[in-house]
Amino acid sequence: MTTDGSIRVSVLGLGAMGSVLAGALVKAGYATTVWNRSPGRADELVAQGARAAATAGEAVRSGQLVIACLLDHESVREVLDPLSGELAGRTLINLTTTTPAQSRESAAWAARAGVAYLDGGIMAVPEMIGRSGASILYSGSAEVFERYEPLLDLWATSTYFGDDAGLASLYDLALLAGMYVMFAGFMHGAAMVAPAGVTAGEFAAMAAPWLTAMTGGFHGFAAVIDGGDYAAEGQQSLRFSDLGDILAASSEQGIGTEVVAVVQRLIRRQIDAGHGDEGFARIIESIRQPA
Amino acid sequence: MTTDGSIRVSVLGLGAMGSVLAGALVKAGYATTVWNRSPGRADELVAQGARAAATAGEAVRSGQLVIACLLDHESVREVLDPLSGELAGRTLINLTTTTPAQSRESAAWAARAGVAYLDGGIMAVPEMIGRSGASILYSGSAEVFERYEPLLDLWATSTYFGDDAGLASLYDLALLAGMYVMFAGFMHGAAMVAPAGVTAGEFAAMAAPWLTAMTGGFHGFAAVIDGGDYAAEGQQSLRFSDLGDILAASSEQGIGTEVVAVVQRLIRRQIDAGHGDEGFARIIESIRQPA
Ligand SMILES: NC(=O)c1ccc[n+]([C@@H]2O[C@H](COP(=O)([O-])OP(=O)(O)OC[C@H]3O[C@@H](n4cnc5c(N)ncnc54)[C@H](OP(=O)(O)O)[C@@H]3O)[C@@H](O)[C@H]2O)c1
Ligand SMILES: NC(=O)c1ccc[n+]([C@@H]2O[C@H](COP(=O)([O-])OP(=O)(O)OC[C@H]3O[C@@H](n4cnc5c(N)ncnc54)[C@H](OP(=O)(O)O)[C@@H]3O)[C@@H](O)[C@H]2O)c1
Repeated sequence: MTTDGSIRVSVLGLGAMGSVLAGALVKAGYATTVWNRSPGRADELVAQGARAAATAGEAVRSGQLVIACLLDHESVREVLDPLSGELAGRTLINLTTTTPAQSRESAAWAARAGVAYLDGGIMAVPEMIGRSGASILYSGSAEVFERYEPLLDLWATSTYFGDDAGLASLYDLALLAGMYVMFAGFMHGAAMVAPAGVTAGEFAAMAAPWLTAMTGGFHGFAAVIDGGDYAAEGQQSLRFSDLGDILAASSEQGIGTEVVAVVQRLIRRQIDAGHGDEGFARIIESIRQPA
Repeated sequence: MTTDGSIRVSVLGLGAMGSVLAGALVKAGYATTVWNRSPGRADELVAQGARAAATAGEAVRSGQLVIACLLDHESVREVLDPLSGELAGRTLINLTTTTPAQSRESAAWAARAGVAYLDGGIMAVPEMIGRSGASILYSGSAEVFERYEPLLDLWATSTYFGDDAGLASLYDLALLAGMYVMFAGFMHGAAMVAPAGVTAGEFAAMAAPWLTAMTGGFHGFAAVIDGGDYAAEGQQSLRFSDLGDILAASSEQGIGTEVVAVVQRLIRRQIDAGHGDEGFARIIESIRQPA
């Protein structure tokens, strides 16, 4: 790939993630200016060819494209609010993890300040950046996404979800929710088998392919949810999905049951509401309409 | 594959699963006798070449190998307890889903009755039997497993875990725990994005590959758990794994938070106990030692 060396990019925030993002830009030949609140973190990047700015304002002034990768929404606001004048007419891509409401707040602020705004959610750890498997989700300005897509693709597979700047964060957090909950399920299973002398490694060797295969079930659930008919044929019924055996076995093994009990409660609420013969996908209603 | 037609097999229980298991044996040329409590369920199998027994006792007497696939442990005991004399000297493979304690109870009963016993846990729905992806877990008599492995392999990938008859059930339930919890995590994510107009199908298309990729993390967690050093380098710390953003975004979307809140509690308990700088894998201790 030949890089448009005339694109001047500034990266604000050189933490674990920001420094890797900036490094990829430098390596690809972009004219890259970097800034970090605490000194010292730019040194390695400067050795690789980046220019260090002494202040965030200086960094903003030297980049037509400004990338923010700070700790959280509050730190973004703290750094950028005083710089609305400098940012006017430039482009801001905010890769800081935020909630959808915070992303929308930043988008509204950018609109008022005359800043083209794209919001991003990074689905990767720093070591994955620039490798296959890394994914970054974007929403906000379609124009910004299209214009800078070759640059964004240096970091990860780039997916654009639409105008609403909150969408990427929402997807990001929804996918992370799925991940953390899956991790808790893995830990529960590993804790169940441990007292029988099974190592976590042995369990992982079974659980990883098993859960991978079971992700195949999502599409069937989705078809039922989107179709709106939880009583459609060919589904495992809620009544059949009794987690009593799993809870009993967990207790027999002397471990806690709360991770599984929460799923049992989602199931029970639907059965108690008279939907026991409908499909398992119906537990989404227990989440949509909490008790 | 040529089948040893001289092996006489009897299948007790012709529900959704038992009838498919029996059908595979008939198709492979085994001399198969079938029995079901309620009449009528054997008809199709008889048309394919099975022999129907009028009573469970008659079925046991005509098979050197008896397969039980009944509803639950209680139904197994109800059917088999009166038949210990008939079963003596024969082999019993129990594929009914039970808890580890129930599997061990059946194994002890079989030992007293002079019955060779193998316990199994089916990790598949009936439609998957005989296809790639289906898995059946076994434990109990190694001799039985080895002797009948070609027959067992007709149904699924067969894995043997050891002498303890409870191990297969334990693995089975631990893997199912992981699956149900992962499903709840998927549903939570789908419920989060729905109010933004994202269909469950669109979310599934992102979530299935994402969670598949994230199962790759199990091995790292397992290495930390088995290594016993939760403070080992290179891990995401518990403090970093704050689910506050996910919980806030879920509430903003107007949905319940209990599925994610349970994981947050596991994390919190470890942080509160002073382990915030240690790795995420440490949440297994919140499960091992419930609050
Ligand atoms: N690391 C990952 O695996 C990962 C994965 C996906 C998404 N993310 C997201 O990427 C973002 C950055 O993460 P990271 O891993 O790079 O975090 P990090 O290593 O903790 O770095 C945080 C960065 O934010 C800066 N910062 C914090 N508060 C600030 C303030 N008030 N004003 C100015 N700068 C401030 C820090 O500057 P100082 O050096 O001065 O403290 C540092 O540059 C976060 O939103 C994170 O959720 C990270
Ligand atoms: N289906 C699956 O997706 C699946 C997956 C994995 C494991 N399994 C396990 O496989 C086993 C069988 O499941 P299934 O799907 O075949 O269930 P099913 O369709 O509900 O059939 C249950 C069977 O058990 C019999 N039964 C129930 N109570 C009995 C009693 N007291 N005495 C004698 N027979 C009795 C039923 O006979 P009647 O016809 O007389 O009622 C029927 O043959 C269960 O332990 C299940 O957990 C099933």
